[in-house]
Amino acid sequence: MGAAASPARSGPASERFSVGLVQMRCGRDPERNRAAALDGIRAAAGRGAEVVCLQELFASPYFCQSEDARRFDLAEAIPGPSTERCAALARELGVAIVAPVFERRAAGLYHNTAAVIDATGELLGLYRKLHVPDDPQYYEKFYFAPGDLGYRVFDTRAARIGVLICWDQWYPEAARLTALQGAEIIFYPSAIGWLPAERSTQGPLQHDAWRTVQRSHAIANGVYVAAVNRVGHEADGQGGLDFWGRSFVCDPRGQVVAEAAGSDSEVLVAECSRTVLEDQRRGWPFLRDRRIDTYAPIGRRFLDAAAGRADPGHG
Amino acid sequence: MGAAASPARSGPASERFSVGLVQMRCGRDPERNRAAALDGIRAAAGRGAEVVCLQELFASPYFCQSEDARRFDLAEAIPGPSTERCAALARELGVAIVAPVFERRAAGLYHNTAAVIDATGELLGLYRKLHVPDDPQYYEKFYFAPGDLGYRVFDTRAARIGVLICWDQWYPEAARLTALQGAEIIFYPSAIGWLPAERSTQGPLQHDAWRTVQRSHAIANGVYVAAVNRVGHEADGQGGLDFWGRSFVCDPRGQVVAEAAGSDSEVLVAECSRTVLEDQRRGWPFLRDRRIDTYAPIGRRFLDAAAGRADPGHG
Repeated sequence: MGAAASPARSGPASERFSVGLVQMRCGRDPERNRAAALDGIRAAAGRGAEVVCLQELFASPYFCQSEDARRFDLAEAIPGPSTERCAALARELGVAIVAPVFERRAAGLYHNTAAVIDATGELLGLYRKLHVPDDPQYYEKFYFAPGDLGYRVFDTRAARIGVLICWDQWYPEAARLTALQGAEIIFYPSAIGWLPAERSTQGPLQHDAWRTVQRSHAIANGVYVAAVNRVGHEADGQGGLDFWGRSFVCDPRGQVVAEAAGSDSEVLVAECSRTVLEDQRRGWPFLRDRRIDTYAPIGRRFLDAAAGRADPGHG
Repeated sequence: MGAAASPARSGPASERFSVGLVQMRCGRDPERNRAAALDGIRAAAGRGAEVVCLQELFASPYFCQSEDARRFDLAEAIPGPSTERCAALARELGVAIVAPVFERRAAGLYHNTAAVIDATGELLGLYRKLHVPDDPQYYEKFYFAPGDLGYRVFDTRAARIGVLICWDQWYPEAARLTALQGAEIIFYPSAIGWLPAERSTQGPLQHDAWRTVQRSHAIANGVYVAAVNRVGHEADGQGGLDFWGRSFVCDPRGQVVAEAAGSDSEVLVAECSRTVLEDQRRGWPFLRDRRIDTYAPIGRRFLDAAAGRADPGHG
């Protein structure tokens, strides 16, 4: 059944594949952040991981806490220092790597991007963050042009994977359009945290919503989901951010099978079973019953009266 | 802000509205089921509910456990016995009622439908279940033609409500298309239960997935969600079904604000706050950042290779 789930891969797929998540603190020095990330990948591979995902913008602090054009100096080309080091390590260890980088595409044109590198070291392609937030201390619309590569899957040696980035996680459309391409797992490299002033009152609720909505993508689509989140306090801007970590992997039933503590850098490894995926989709065959004849208005901003809300035939 | 959320209603909306959920056992006699449902509505109204939702197919046992053409005798026209009794009670109590009925539309043409009746007794309209399951002991495709009224909202006196039915709950598209019409709350009348043989091994997991995916609709769309589920064992078919009850209301942050025990008939009442809804959407403005230019392929069954999966431009 693995072959059916991933028709484009050559040869039969094994029943299981293993994924690694590297959750880490970041400092100001990109080279030290890269070294820490490579250490994490090495640790994950040592525990059997075949695909390892780093956190969003792993080579730098989360610089979007303020709008400052000098921060564009942190961006890099692809290929560039981060992806070249990851490609070399991928080849050495025989693991695929999802490397989220601040991509410089041209002067004045930057993206929040994930490079997907196969276990051979080959760059399989890029995903550029499609849903870009702009909130106090998350001024991403200043730094990142919206992605223009659409939703993607990548046939790594171990599994067909999808990648979405942070704010994308709140959009069921993004998970759906990735899953419909046959993704077996969707990775969400993230940098989400609390405003310190809100942490005591809103913290548990915000974390729970984040975890719940991503688990629901696994359930609704019958895929594995892996969220990889930054950890630690970074003070840069009004009050800094407390990144909450708590990276996790959940199965296609929404059950969390591995979860990090929130407090510090950690490497998670989890096994994913194609039997679980197949059985879940046989038991609850949601893809069979989609009413694709009714979904077109999802492409509208809002279905208000001026746009024809009262028309019962719009669906 | 209530007025902004519900532009079609006349006059300012109050800060809060209150909803009631009637979770009940059903027997073979439709008149007794109707009487029990009316008692539940009365109890909810007595506790302040302004919109009361009954469970899916509330006037009968869950007859879809086997395919038997004699069960079409259970269907009724709209208006018909169930909606007429509900309309009279709505008018008497001044509450809106969501009445899910087995609708006979023509000879050989039946739907799984919810009638929405305003507090005046007026029939505001129908929602006909769009996603129709077919699984062992849930043979709904035999009984129900797929809905043809699209996704709807209804301006009751107390709130703008959306209604979806049971299997619809697994489809983020359905929640989105209802929320985009300005729904403040989405009701999910349901009849979901365990196969007794699976209950001990799969029961908690299935219930958790059901609760999680509906909470996620609240989070992703910034709306209240109310699930109203049948309760009790009904033996009709291979092994019967244990309906798990556990009706609940959650707020736009996904927090459960009221929840029934699973064991017996129960009336739930919960208050919904337009301030909570407004504040949540201001804090996490997901609707602002939807990439409506990328969603069109949601209207495809699957994005496999034969259909152009490898085309990076499809999104």
